[in-house]
Amino acid sequence: MADVVTFGEAMVRLSPPDFNRLEQTATLDVRVGGAEFNVAIGVARLGMSSAFVTRVPTNPLGRMIVNKTREHGVDCSHVVWTKEDRAGLYFLEFGASPRPSNVIYDRKDSAISRIKKGEVNWDAALSGAKLFHTSGITAALSPTAREAFLESLEKAKQNKVKVSIDLNYRAKLWTEAEAQECMTMAMKYTDILITTEEDTMRVFKIEGKDYEEVARKLHDRFGFELVLITLREDLSVWRNKWTAIALHDGKVYKTRTYEVEIVDRVGGGDSCSAGFLYGYLQDGDVQKGIDWGVAFSALKHSVPGDVNWCTPDEVKRLVGGGGLRIVR
Amino acid sequence: MADVVTFGEAMVRLSPPDFNRLEQTATLDVRVGGAEFNVAIGVARLGMSSAFVTRVPTNPLGRMIVNKTREHGVDCSHVVWTKEDRAGLYFLEFGASPRPSNVIYDRKDSAISRIKKGEVNWDAALSGAKLFHTSGITAALSPTAREAFLESLEKAKQNKVKVSIDLNYRAKLWTEAEAQECMTMAMKYTDILITTEEDTMRVFKIEGKDYEEVARKLHDRFGFELVLITLREDLSVWRNKWTAIALHDGKVYKTRTYEVEIVDRVGGGDSCSAGFLYGYLQDGDVQKGIDWGVAFSALKHSVPGDVNWCTPDEVKRLVGGGGLRIVR
Amino acid sequence: MADVVTFGEAMVRLSPPDFNRLEQTATLDVRVGGAEFNVAIGVARLGMSSAFVTRVPTNPLGRMIVNKTREHGVDCSHVVWTKEDRAGLYFLEFGASPRPSNVIYDRKDSAISRIKKGEVNWDAALSGAKLFHTSGITAALSPTAREAFLESLEKAKQNKVKVSIDLNYRAKLWTEAEAQECMTMAMKYTDILITTEEDTMRVFKIEGKDYEEVARKLHDRFGFELVLITLREDLSVWRNKWTAIALHDGKVYKTRTYEVEIVDRVGGGDSCSAGFLYGYLQDGDVQKGIDWGVAFSALKHSVPGDVNWCTPDEVKRLVGGGGLRIVR
Amino acid sequence: MADVVTFGEAMVRLSPPDFNRLEQTATLDVRVGGAEFNVAIGVARLGMSSAFVTRVPTNPLGRMIVNKTREHGVDCSHVVWTKEDRAGLYFLEFGASPRPSNVIYDRKDSAISRIKKGEVNWDAALSGAKLFHTSGITAALSPTAREAFLESLEKAKQNKVKVSIDLNYRAKLWTEAEAQECMTMAMKYTDILITTEEDTMRVFKIEGKDYEEVARKLHDRFGFELVLITLREDLSVWRNKWTAIALHDGKVYKTRTYEVEIVDRVGGGDSCSAGFLYGYLQDGDVQKGIDWGVAFSALKHSVPGDVNWCTPDEVKRLVGGGGLRIVR
Amino acid sequence: MADVVTFGEAMVRLSPPDFNRLEQTATLDVRVGGAEFNVAIGVARLGMSSAFVTRVPTNPLGRMIVNKTREHGVDCSHVVWTKEDRAGLYFLEFGASPRPSNVIYDRKDSAISRIKKGEVNWDAALSGAKLFHTSGITAALSPTAREAFLESLEKAKQNKVKVSIDLNYRAKLWTEAEAQECMTMAMKYTDILITTEEDTMRVFKIEGKDYEEVARKLHDRFGFELVLITLREDLSVWRNKWTAIALHDGKVYKTRTYEVEIVDRVGGGDSCSAGFLYGYLQDGDVQKGIDWGVAFSALKHSVPGDVNWCTPDEVKRLVGGGGLRIVR
Amino acid sequence: MADVVTFGEAMVRLSPPDFNRLEQTATLDVRVGGAEFNVAIGVARLGMSSAFVTRVPTNPLGRMIVNKTREHGVDCSHVVWTKEDRAGLYFLEFGASPRPSNVIYDRKDSAISRIKKGEVNWDAALSGAKLFHTSGITAALSPTAREAFLESLEKAKQNKVKVSIDLNYRAKLWTEAEAQECMTMAMKYTDILITTEEDTMRVFKIEGKDYEEVARKLHDRFGFELVLITLREDLSVWRNKWTAIALHDGKVYKTRTYEVEIVDRVGGGDSCSAGFLYGYLQDGDVQKGIDWGVAFSALKHSVPGDVNWCTPDEVKRLVGGGGLRIVR
Repeated sequence: MADVVTFGEAMVRLSPPDFNRLEQTATLDVRVGGAEFNVAIGVARLGMSSAFVTRVPTNPLGRMIVNKTREHGVDCSHVVWTKEDRAGLYFLEFGASPRPSNVIYDRKDSAISRIKKGEVNWDAALSGAKLFHTSGITAALSPTAREAFLESLEKAKQNKVKVSIDLNYRAKLWTEAEAQECMTMAMKYTDILITTEEDTMRVFKIEGKDYEEVARKLHDRFGFELVLITLREDLSVWRNKWTAIALHDGKVYKTRTYEVEIVDRVGGGDSCSAGFLYGYLQDGDVQKGIDWGVAFSALKHSVPGDVNWCTPDEVKRLVGGGGLRIVR
Repeated sequence: MADVVTFGEAMVRLSPPDFNRLEQTATLDVRVGGAEFNVAIGVARLGMSSAFVTRVPTNPLGRMIVNKTREHGVDCSHVVWTKEDRAGLYFLEFGASPRPSNVIYDRKDSAISRIKKGEVNWDAALSGAKLFHTSGITAALSPTAREAFLESLEKAKQNKVKVSIDLNYRAKLWTEAEAQECMTMAMKYTDILITTEEDTMRVFKIEGKDYEEVARKLHDRFGFELVLITLREDLSVWRNKWTAIALHDGKVYKTRTYEVEIVDRVGGGDSCSAGFLYGYLQDGDVQKGIDWGVAFSALKHSVPGDVNWCTPDEVKRLVGGGGLRIVR
Repeated sequence: MADVVTFGEAMVRLSPPDFNRLEQTATLDVRVGGAEFNVAIGVARLGMSSAFVTRVPTNPLGRMIVNKTREHGVDCSHVVWTKEDRAGLYFLEFGASPRPSNVIYDRKDSAISRIKKGEVNWDAALSGAKLFHTSGITAALSPTAREAFLESLEKAKQNKVKVSIDLNYRAKLWTEAEAQECMTMAMKYTDILITTEEDTMRVFKIEGKDYEEVARKLHDRFGFELVLITLREDLSVWRNKWTAIALHDGKVYKTRTYEVEIVDRVGGGDSCSAGFLYGYLQDGDVQKGIDWGVAFSALKHSVPGDVNWCTPDEVKRLVGGGGLRIVR
Repeated sequence: MADVVTFGEAMVRLSPPDFNRLEQTATLDVRVGGAEFNVAIGVARLGMSSAFVTRVPTNPLGRMIVNKTREHGVDCSHVVWTKEDRAGLYFLEFGASPRPSNVIYDRKDSAISRIKKGEVNWDAALSGAKLFHTSGITAALSPTAREAFLESLEKAKQNKVKVSIDLNYRAKLWTEAEAQECMTMAMKYTDILITTEEDTMRVFKIEGKDYEEVARKLHDRFGFELVLITLREDLSVWRNKWTAIALHDGKVYKTRTYEVEIVDRVGGGDSCSAGFLYGYLQDGDVQKGIDWGVAFSALKHSVPGDVNWCTPDEVKRLVGGGGLRIVR
Repeated sequence: MADVVTFGEAMVRLSPPDFNRLEQTATLDVRVGGAEFNVAIGVARLGMSSAFVTRVPTNPLGRMIVNKTREHGVDCSHVVWTKEDRAGLYFLEFGASPRPSNVIYDRKDSAISRIKKGEVNWDAALSGAKLFHTSGITAALSPTAREAFLESLEKAKQNKVKVSIDLNYRAKLWTEAEAQECMTMAMKYTDILITTEEDTMRVFKIEGKDYEEVARKLHDRFGFELVLITLREDLSVWRNKWTAIALHDGKVYKTRTYEVEIVDRVGGGDSCSAGFLYGYLQDGDVQKGIDWGVAFSALKHSVPGDVNWCTPDEVKRLVGGGGLRIVR
Repeated sequence: MADVVTFGEAMVRLSPPDFNRLEQTATLDVRVGGAEFNVAIGVARLGMSSAFVTRVPTNPLGRMIVNKTREHGVDCSHVVWTKEDRAGLYFLEFGASPRPSNVIYDRKDSAISRIKKGEVNWDAALSGAKLFHTSGITAALSPTAREAFLESLEKAKQNKVKVSIDLNYRAKLWTEAEAQECMTMAMKYTDILITTEEDTMRVFKIEGKDYEEVARKLHDRFGFELVLITLREDLSVWRNKWTAIALHDGKVYKTRTYEVEIVDRVGGGDSCSAGFLYGYLQDGDVQKGIDWGVAFSALKHSVPGDVNWCTPDEVKRLVGGGGLRIVR
């Protein structure tokens, strides 16, 4: 009965505090993150109902993943539990110029990577949904996950649920050739594509003189309802510029560019997806979608963890031009 | 017997570490802060004697407030203790652009907000003092606090103690109309007014083409011995510019503008008051007052907590042009 | 649609780490706790569906309370949100013999204490429930809370939902006379009474030569379906003995006495309620109820926070005689 | 103008958290401690005025020592400040049976150890005092400290201030022969001797069949107004038994023996001194002195740090038989 | 050139602080542990040279494992590095009665579990060694690890290096039947067997009326130079009794039984092995071996982490009867 | 047998977390640092063998210093152990503009400062080495350390080991005149001089219009094989520019200038030395030396502690132009 249903991996995220390198740390901060997990929570925090579909082990880490999802009111009733596999982990080191932040995956053989077609009751999970969202990461996890990924897209179409996909290419998980083959298939189910210039080039070999042209070429090749392209400029590790454009019905929509001071940029793109989906699905307003997407995402950079703990009021205030003074 | 006596609320301040949002935090850092508490301590750290007058409950939080005051040698013998009420709290979230820092008050019905006229032995507390300092916040706490605030000003005048007031408008505590009524009354007792352009506009509806003109208009309306106006420019949440001017005897005094990297900006203005009062009261030197006020305050931004733990030697070094190299 | 619905206050709980006194601490651990919150979560963790009804402010602390409830899958759709009031707080100091642990409430004027009759849609909240659970604390919060408490009992009866009440006398909240008057009224709606010898004596002036006799006298006066009495023996602050008895249909049921090493005893009684309700409601087996109640509760003492993070497998292992060796 | 004046060293105390060994630790908890510092604070917390005399460097650690003293209202106006020397440090490792807790001193050449006769204005410091307290540790710090120690005793006598001395033998600081020579001299100024059987034997070679006999022999040799002997029984590192006796006017006074769960036993003896002095000086009641001394000290074992953060109300409750139940 | 060479897995150990359950924790303490790693370090800390052979990935966790070994002076020049596999992890939850501590392995497909026969240059690694030590855990990791385990034993025999084996049965890694088959083969290379009654029964189906008889039966079946059996009695989760016996040349050697307060019992048995090997290898003194083994091991229970940070002086003091008083 | 041997002091470094001032902190982070310690570790992490020579007390802090050296594979077999003296300490406060970071030494009478000529077996320590490295700090520690410093240089020459010296003037340890006298003597043994414009001016009174001229003048006066001059520009406390030049055979070598975001700048210069020595000694390539030196050093600024935990792969990536995007 959720408005938005997402499907993918959530990992336990372990990060050394205070810019320590993993090799030197005596403690790790524990959080949970993952692209589709982040989107499901973002949408829920903004006020729509959402559900997250994944596969987790029946152990403390599997329960932690589900707890951290439910905490924000996201429905987890279609999560698949298994006594077999492990929870995926990722280690995150925070950088400072000229050392970029760094992700070290320990997600091999995670429960969700071993999901098989048929394990999720998609008809029930998607019943009544407005939108189904997943990303290239889910497909990249393993050959069986790829099948389950394609199955989920078919099921969404069968259930007349709109599909949004974040291309999200991860070089550590599969090759560009593998991604191209699978994601090209996926595109035929896709209504809304969310991506970056770089991923577009790596997965589809599409380039353009600017990201507007890239959006148009994507639309031309695959015929999407809407393309959303995010743009990050790395002024330094601690300061980025951040914006996005949307292409819809031949028209390009733009919004403000934010200069962000970075506490934690992981999940920034996912917040953009969540904010956009919220704004766009509420009343089909592309401009509101992109305004809220980029603002919600800019706010995310100031919050530790993958999850965006900001509120609709804060997004509204920022979109409305709220300043940097202390609020009291 | 203290040189400077201040009067107001000190709250237990609870802030999530490491830029966590309050909603997500697993721990809180505990400190104590409050405008007049900050000034009393600042003055004491710079080398004058000071006393703080407030009202606190006889419980661990009330004792903590008094402990943290005495720690810096501030006299607390005129603090009013009560078995009834609670200690005021405030929660502080640290931001990063574009998310400003945020204060959430939980100070309603605090012990000091329930103070009544006549509870403080002002003649004893002010005996031998050179200056009495309070702020608009004390007046804003409650109707009875407003009476006690005005009583304190009268008592200062009766005891021939100079009065400085920080206008400090807090929209979460009272309306602009309430503030205007009460603070206009207070101005007739005021020798030194410390404020900002914004607060002047909100409380007294006085505006000017620059803050020099604002200072002159304030002087013209109320006839102060001295007006001190601080100016903050928010380059970003982590970087501000900070300076002040003073108007005295028709002359405007200026000082250096500092670009500050912000660890914790709360209490920055109070450090400016403390540094100014120290410099000015020592030998009536307005220029020294403003130099020390702004330097002490610039240093405050680099120190966690409301309290300015810097030393007179550090202020001297900074006023003297000390650089940014590591000192060793 | 929850099996068990509970009603009461959940507070943000702030405790100094490492046995620090509140007065001396530099940090506070942040958790959420409260009698009926604890029971709702306990029941959910053991495998039944549950819902929690309370009233919270729309601020970070209010959201935290709801998040921490939802985290365990407890339904919060009937929580009442308000823009007015504050979240209740409590400070907890951990002791060591001969210094007992200590609770300092700062819960006055909390959102739930200001609830009024009619604010909760009880017919919806109780629809399909097997049991409604609340405690004397809810009644003690304020006169309007007392009315809402009695209303909830009436509604439960109207909806043919079984009622369990934990007497839970709190001397800091109301007098014995007030408690006696209100709780005597409440008893006529009560099917299952959960209490201690001490509370029985203070609230109903009922005493006996042992707690079996107390249970019988309670039954004789009020005619309950079942009385559960817990017994704690304080060997020291860090070591307690813990057990309970149940009286049902004239028969007394007993279970093992555990010697517990205490990490955090707060919520121990609530875990006993949850374990008992789970065991008893599942198949009407009083012996299983008391076995699971006392075992789940014994485990609680080893877990930090009000919430019992243990699992049904761990209860099963303990009830089945599992030992103290490290499990690997 | 303080009732009680104490004289000695306060060190910055650095202890690894969570039972870590110093060699392995990544963080250190920072506190301040020292025998006479502890007594001055203990007396102040119980309600008498007190002052602490020491010598500290004008650096952050010196200021920290003074801050932590003033925090409890102890007067520090006779502290000697120096630009030369360092602050003494001690490292404390917490043990668990069979590994005892362990103190590693790094106090050589501390500011107080380099104090010289004549640096303190004793006539001013002792003016109006009821009692002067110091310990064998002060004498043990260095030859010049020894002279300053004897000077302080003479000054106390000249000012007709009663003298209490804690024998406090520290084998790491001086030999038994050195201690015997110096402390025998000191005894002629001593009205109240506080000690243990073991220290008495090591310093004065006095032994007895029990500690009553030891007290009598001490009295016979030196003719004190009062002898207080504390007794600790180490059941384990985490559990001790703790009591004391006093001999006064030929009569032996006893009190309850406490079994304590040990959070931090450092400063336990000093709390006994403080509690005793408070009880005895208030109205000359030896029994109250020893009751309060042992109770205040028993409570100290439950509090982290050298300082006893308990309150007179808690002592009263314990002396009155208060139990181990959580207080709420 | 090391006196003692050990071979096995070292894992990154992640444990929630302050008795938190893994499911609820916000941080994890990071350490390294593993049976043979612990023994190599223990022996080195007591004063003999040692080397550790394992296989680790060339990533931060692999480097951390090697760093933490080298830190104590253990030679790591024969560690096998791989770009392929992962570092094994284990999660450790600390318990309190009646909840035992709990280990959750995430060590599948670790680098060492994928070691193959022939990867280690055993002739070089064992050159000049007095003793080679490994345990049943190494054999249990995988079929290829089993082959590498047996190869190491053969190589030790070829190089005339004495062999000690800790039986260390881990039910989570292999079945009793698998263990019996492999370990029976291993016994023919074994000079010194270190085990417990329980493991003997599970692996070899040998039982006896007491552990002396078990030692004799082991000796009778396999003809060892020496059998060491450790005995733990779980008084509670926080208090154990701990001792051992050795059988050598038909004679049984006993030592003191320690009652230990448990900070961290993991690695306790390995410390016993290390202490025993140190004492026994130094001058063939079985009594010294067992005295040092049990004392070093008793001390280990008081130290956080797998590694025993105690010193030879501390063992000497304990064996010599040192008490529980604070050392200062 | 180490390629590079360094000689100097390593101190236990204690720093308040989170920008706290030392005076206000409740905890200290514990690390180890010191110029030559940093260089020995840097060289080892990049892949050459190294050894560190120092003198430490046989206590937990002395062992910690050696542990933290060995952790990175640095040979410590020529460290001198003493039962007498103390470990040097330094306190480090992190600043934010306009407050610079600050070092407070407590290193007086440290074990290494009391080293005497003849205590180190230099012939053994230097056997087979390619380079010996030390700095002006070692000479500045005490008169006897100065003799040991000059002895080490003689021994290096006798053993035909190339010598590099970092001038490293520390005003808190000796006067410019003392430094000039001693370092002028030292220069005749020096093959590679590493320094800054400022130190050159203070110690040798050599100035120039730019740092190229300074390098040439140094070469002209002392005739070095190579001069390396580092240049730091303090944009703010959190942002610096950083580069270096080398003069060799009359030719000036330059490299990229990095803008660094500063997590911890202590040890930045030492990383430059280590990176340079690694690059230069490997194959005599000055350009590689300076490229690696400045890149390794730029990375150091992003890592907490004196030690540079970065890897050769990270240096290679940065020298090769790697960007600021998160790596995943």
